[in-house]
Amino acid sequence: PHATAPHATAAIVLGDNQYGKAEVRLLRVDRDTPRHRITELSVTSQLRGDFASAHLVGDNAPVVATDTQKNTVFALAKDGVGAPEEFALRLAEHFTSGFDWVSGGRWLVKQYTWERIPTTLADNATDGTHDHAFVKGGTETRTAVVQRDGDDVFVVAGLEDLSVLKSTGSEFHGFPRDRYTTLAETDDRILATSVTARWRYTTADVDYDALYADVRRLLLETFADVHSFALQQTLYKMGERVLHEHPEIGEIRFSMPNLHHFLVDLAPFGMDNPGEVFYAADRPYGLIEAEVRRADVAPDPRAWSTVAGFC
Amino acid sequence: PHATAPHATAAIVLGDNQYGKAEVRLLRVDRDTPRHRITELSVTSQLRGDFASAHLVGDNAPVVATDTQKNTVFALAKDGVGAPEEFALRLAEHFTSGFDWVSGGRWLVKQYTWERIPTTLADNATDGTHDHAFVKGGTETRTAVVQRDGDDVFVVAGLEDLSVLKSTGSEFHGFPRDRYTTLAETDDRILATSVTARWRYTTADVDYDALYADVRRLLLETFADVHSFALQQTLYKMGERVLHEHPEIGEIRFSMPNLHHFLVDLAPFGMDNPGEVFYAADRPYGLIEAEVRRADVAPDPRAWSTVAGFC
Amino acid sequence: PHATAPHATAAIVLGDNQYGKAEVRLLRVDRDTPRHRITELSVTSQLRGDFASAHLVGDNAPVVATDTQKNTVFALAKDGVGAPEEFALRLAEHFTSGFDWVSGGRWLVKQYTWERIPTTLADNATDGTHDHAFVKGGTETRTAVVQRDGDDVFVVAGLEDLSVLKSTGSEFHGFPRDRYTTLAETDDRILATSVTARWRYTTADVDYDALYADVRRLLLETFADVHSFALQQTLYKMGERVLHEHPEIGEIRFSMPNLHHFLVDLAPFGMDNPGEVFYAADRPYGLIEAEVRRADVAPDPRAWSTVAGFC
Amino acid sequence: PHATAPHATAAIVLGDNQYGKAEVRLLRVDRDTPRHRITELSVTSQLRGDFASAHLVGDNAPVVATDTQKNTVFALAKDGVGAPEEFALRLAEHFTSGFDWVSGGRWLVKQYTWERIPTTLADNATDGTHDHAFVKGGTETRTAVVQRDGDDVFVVAGLEDLSVLKSTGSEFHGFPRDRYTTLAETDDRILATSVTARWRYTTADVDYDALYADVRRLLLETFADVHSFALQQTLYKMGERVLHEHPEIGEIRFSMPNLHHFLVDLAPFGMDNPGEVFYAADRPYGLIEAEVRRADVAPDPRAWSTVAGFC
Repeated sequence: PHATAPHATAAIVLGDNQYGKAEVRLLRVDRDTPRHRITELSVTSQLRGDFASAHLVGDNAPVVATDTQKNTVFALAKDGVGAPEEFALRLAEHFTSGFDWVSGGRWLVKQYTWERIPTTLADNATDGTHDHAFVKGGTETRTAVVQRDGDDVFVVAGLEDLSVLKSTGSEFHGFPRDRYTTLAETDDRILATSVTARWRYTTADVDYDALYADVRRLLLETFADVHSFALQQTLYKMGERVLHEHPEIGEIRFSMPNLHHFLVDLAPFGMDNPGEVFYAADRPYGLIEAEVRRADVAPDPRAWSTVAGFC
Repeated sequence: PHATAPHATAAIVLGDNQYGKAEVRLLRVDRDTPRHRITELSVTSQLRGDFASAHLVGDNAPVVATDTQKNTVFALAKDGVGAPEEFALRLAEHFTSGFDWVSGGRWLVKQYTWERIPTTLADNATDGTHDHAFVKGGTETRTAVVQRDGDDVFVVAGLEDLSVLKSTGSEFHGFPRDRYTTLAETDDRILATSVTARWRYTTADVDYDALYADVRRLLLETFADVHSFALQQTLYKMGERVLHEHPEIGEIRFSMPNLHHFLVDLAPFGMDNPGEVFYAADRPYGLIEAEVRRADVAPDPRAWSTVAGFC
Repeated sequence: PHATAPHATAAIVLGDNQYGKAEVRLLRVDRDTPRHRITELSVTSQLRGDFASAHLVGDNAPVVATDTQKNTVFALAKDGVGAPEEFALRLAEHFTSGFDWVSGGRWLVKQYTWERIPTTLADNATDGTHDHAFVKGGTETRTAVVQRDGDDVFVVAGLEDLSVLKSTGSEFHGFPRDRYTTLAETDDRILATSVTARWRYTTADVDYDALYADVRRLLLETFADVHSFALQQTLYKMGERVLHEHPEIGEIRFSMPNLHHFLVDLAPFGMDNPGEVFYAADRPYGLIEAEVRRADVAPDPRAWSTVAGFC
Repeated sequence: PHATAPHATAAIVLGDNQYGKAEVRLLRVDRDTPRHRITELSVTSQLRGDFASAHLVGDNAPVVATDTQKNTVFALAKDGVGAPEEFALRLAEHFTSGFDWVSGGRWLVKQYTWERIPTTLADNATDGTHDHAFVKGGTETRTAVVQRDGDDVFVVAGLEDLSVLKSTGSEFHGFPRDRYTTLAETDDRILATSVTARWRYTTADVDYDALYADVRRLLLETFADVHSFALQQTLYKMGERVLHEHPEIGEIRFSMPNLHHFLVDLAPFGMDNPGEVFYAADRPYGLIEAEVRRADVAPDPRAWSTVAGFC
């Protein structure tokens, strides 16, 4: 240790802080009947409150160890996990009610999709699918972020990496042209994106699994249905539709890359290319981010303060 | 340039070599009817033959540019791509027949899964799914490796990242115990793996898409069905079943990690844990690799020489 | 297109939004002398302002195309790029001054490290390093985020993935023990983390390259020097030291995983293990995040609103 | 379990196989003096021999558990690890001498680079660097693959991800032009690659650390020094130089992507671009692979049979 002091240090203070255990990978098997159910989660728990002593002098008296947080995730899973939002809410309640100085925190739960393996065999199977064998897959990762600040609770559900593509029904024209503009206008292009969406529930009276399934359905259906003049327009319609159908949701945010598929110029080879052969580019990509919300729902920055990837 | 010669250089020669363009990302849209079909491929083309002049003196006279190989991938896609094995075979024929000094090569095609978006709307939809809007997903990546050596052609089909899990029906015991053995025996454990499999066709008379689908089905069904005493046993049964059902296949190779799911010890918290709460570990992991083959099919190392990830 | 209306839609509005081109990968070669200099950047440009028409009705009149933003990145690089903060500031000025309806935005620039290749040869070399041949490497990625809101400009510099490890000089004890606590106390453990740090400049009068280099030096030196009783304490000391030395910086934020290295129990093999053999775990990991700031610097959420990964 | 038999199964047999534990992440701290040394390895151990019973009937009598292999890695590390080639050789000797039915195997060791943290402080420091605090970095990953088949031992050293770039001194022209060729010839381009190289020692009398360092030096220096007319030429010269300088090496193989940097066309903006502003592409990329060897060294496919990524 050393001590030099070219500048005054009086004014330096601890700001916001949180800590915990990240990416606790949990598999819960429900085996009360021979037809098992499995739930795979990745859980991150972070606590907020008065942890100044740890930062300032290395005194860990208030520091609920991150290892303890991990153990708690596993212990609470013993009673079943339910929807990811529910599991996050239980963790939030456990930590904020159990330690006086823990005034809040952030709990992120990701859920991965497993489906039963189809089988033509009779053993350990029911209606053509296996009772305890599963294949991972599906199309997106489901997410739930619960934040708690004292008695205020914020539940943000979401999904990541829902990759969708339209092979027609997308145009892009009418944009301004300055000295650096070279892009040609088009009335038929590929529209491809990987949807990350998060939506905030403004009521606790929610069937989380049912709403998740329906929001997902609406996002897909609207992406498919909208004849698009801009990815911004598609995004807005998707959000509008979700809010339109589900009054439990006060706002929804999107981060949607525009994953470019460029029509290959086959003319040098003496061929035309009427929308058939495309090159899929990696980088750079467009990036469209926006929120769609109810005008009468008060924004609360605390709901979104640690939710990455949005404007 | 410099010239120092501490050792004789006479004996240094060029060995095996190949070169080309890797990971050409191609989207083919078949739009002959309003109900589009899309195929997403990643194509790698590498040529073999007499390219000594390029290596030894930088003379590119024989070097079919990798950019030309890329262009050829796009140009040949104009006529449709078909099964990935077929597209790779067309590329092989094109390059080996078109340039005298190209005696062979290696063509790797990966195919990704897209499904139609379900919709309740009537516009641009047929039987409840959209005509030109798709969602990416599924469970594995399909692969095809075609190698050609003069007139000899080798077709190896395969799949990657097919993640499967059994929540019971797996035991592990009877293994030898030496001074470094601490693992407890178990008669009920999670068995999870991510299957990479590759199989060689010993005939050209193959419906590649149909066989792929059925091999995939057999792999899943056998993984599910086998009561496992070792991942090796499960692997062997999977291979045996595929060969048993499909005489067109001469050999099949597997690389299957044992993705450990450890039962969490909840006893310190006063709880039992009868196979309900597991911790999913990342690394290290078991790694089981083996070939299952027909005794009467002559092995040919050329079929597998650049196929990574197998013993 | 369809039209159903189970709920009123009047109240649904567009919220915050931004859009642009992400991860434009740029290499700038300065070749005014035979001793070249190279700069590799990844640039993301996103605009904010009045883009309602694009979202609501697909009218792109205000949409400066993301392709145009990409072109602008390349065009402005023609004049040289300078420090990443400077290049981001030039992009900000270009877009906000060039389009009336662009009121602000966000520009993220990442810079990668290249060093000259050492050589014992005389050709194209100066003082033992090559004039135009480079090797990539180093230890971290440098980042700069510039946000602009009208005339207000926010400059946040930073670094990512600076992986550091102490093989002793770290203790962890005195934490509370509840029913879920099993962790043993220790007075000698490995302390390893991968530092992500971001700091805000509160003045424009900054030599960005010189300050970056010195902040990096202070972070490394302080991590090494502090005898740690908690990663929180190490983090705080690192931030305190930076603020102490550099009055141009108003606040600094850290996201630091605790990358666990567990002492392997060799006792079953008849061996002791006095801090010599460790298992490096992947997940879960601790995650410590905090801000250190000057008490007299007004916080401005706009500086941090899209800076991911912090509390 | 089920039993159907549409085809005869008599001819189906087990082929080559190997199994073990992959990516055991090990940190070894040498702390015999206050100036610690650390070694970070990722170790994969796979055994070959007679494991038919496990595959055919699930009898694990010969199956040295992968958990035991992991434990052995840690236990042997207690005596120190030395060069990665030496550690792999010790593992090979341990397993093949310890179990009659283990006739061989494959041991892969990757080593990561850590450097001491520079410090201006006096505590716990020696000559300006810290005694027990380290920063990760450097430019490449070092690899060692030892394979053993009975008493035959094969040692292949190597490196991965050594990214290098020349900003001039590279031409590409004279390649054939067919109907699919559009690439323009150039006499000045960026040459960038990420070198993966592996070389086989034909003697056991090797100072592995010293040779590794010198091969790395020669690869860098030759890449820098060669005025390149083709990446193939650069590759060959790199291999030739290594073999020229080091008689202990019988052959060296390279896999070198051609990481394209395209000159941006600034003419639409009224600017020239004399080799100053480049776009770095991701995919596709060229891929050049070749072996350089001594004519009088007998090839042995067993040395390379599981070494991925080469022709």
